[in-house]
Amino acid sequence: MRLHGFFRSGASYRVRIALGMKGIAFEQTSYMLRRGDQRQPAYLDMNPQGLVPTLELDDGTRLTQSVAILEWLEETHPQPSMLPSDPLQRARVRAFALAIACDIHSVQNLGVLNAVKALGHTEAQVNDWAKRVNSDGLDACEKMIAGNFGPFCFGTQPTMADICLVPQLVNARRFGCDMTRWPRLLAAEAACMALPYFAAAAPELQPDAE
Amino acid sequence: MRLHGFFRSGASYRVRIALGMKGIAFEQTSYMLRRGDQRQPAYLDMNPQGLVPTLELDDGTRLTQSVAILEWLEETHPQPSMLPSDPLQRARVRAFALAIACDIHSVQNLGVLNAVKALGHTEAQVNDWAKRVNSDGLDACEKMIAGNFGPFCFGTQPTMADICLVPQLVNARRFGCDMTRWPRLLAAEAACMALPYFAAAAPELQPDAE
Repeated sequence: MRLHGFFRSGASYRVRIALGMKGIAFEQTSYMLRRGDQRQPAYLDMNPQGLVPTLELDDGTRLTQSVAILEWLEETHPQPSMLPSDPLQRARVRAFALAIACDIHSVQNLGVLNAVKALGHTEAQVNDWAKRVNSDGLDACEKMIAGNFGPFCFGTQPTMADICLVPQLVNARRFGCDMTRWPRLLAAEAACMALPYFAAAAPELQPDAE
Repeated sequence: MRLHGFFRSGASYRVRIALGMKGIAFEQTSYMLRRGDQRQPAYLDMNPQGLVPTLELDDGTRLTQSVAILEWLEETHPQPSMLPSDPLQRARVRAFALAIACDIHSVQNLGVLNAVKALGHTEAQVNDWAKRVNSDGLDACEKMIAGNFGPFCFGTQPTMADICLVPQLVNARRFGCDMTRWPRLLAAEAACMALPYFAAAAPELQPDAE
């Protein structure tokens, strides 16, 4: 398989973690997002949204949207599982993952920040936008798992929730959020980063890291 | 079951369609979003994100995030199915649904539009933001299903893709998008609206419609 992505893309990072969890070897093609590589015609043929990542299978099939890719990996490579077996618990894990994917990550991605900038705002205002989106969103995430046993977001095994959380915390740090607000999220992150496949997926360890 | 939502909320609309598809009776509690009902403490206890919808089960369990709710409904009420059986086709359906849920809907929801307004922009500029997000996003969606048989997004049965598409097209019209750009999406919408449970879920037919 080949992951078309970028070391700093949170959505690419999710897929790197999941591929590692499932023990799937993959190669990477890097798209420099600030240079607009993902808006070039050849990439848009693979991914009409012009977003990373795209997972290319060995037969050339291309899959887009990181959370849809996680679900596909779970269905085709069930072990180790990234979802609990109980439907209610699965719903809670997915709700947490989607709270990040839909309502945090997408609202502070490069395209949206460029749109804020295009409205005439400074880099500092753009950063404030991203910081606020991360802070408000992660405040809600902290509450969503407040009552759950750890060390991971939902118990003793990492799930799709943790796979979405870890990359988002990297962004929150980058935008200067006060990380001390989220002790429960940080505990889950620490448990994750002790696992080799989470550690290996970190942005700074990727071949295209600057 | 009780759906905590709002007639005009696209995410609530998705869940209304899915409940109707599965033949599940439900009651509704309405939250006037512009008045900030969804930010009141009692609602935040149910849904820490302060977003609609929340699905409350008969035993008091609350589920959040509309796409997670769709997945839960599919797992607990498998027939009629809103996902194909083939994993690759499921991945494509989910990618389309998430392209809308993550990258269109969330970037033009009320909270984001209020944030744009708070940066000092006019109603017209705020509308332009929402219109652009819908136009660019739905252009990509049109391409994502260009090669598929209809009449629905992915073949002869409605899926999670259609359930996310129909509410988004309502928004696109509301923000003044040029709908003629998307013949394939409109064909899928027409096929959906011929089904009683899609028709019954329409915003203007809800008890709280203004």
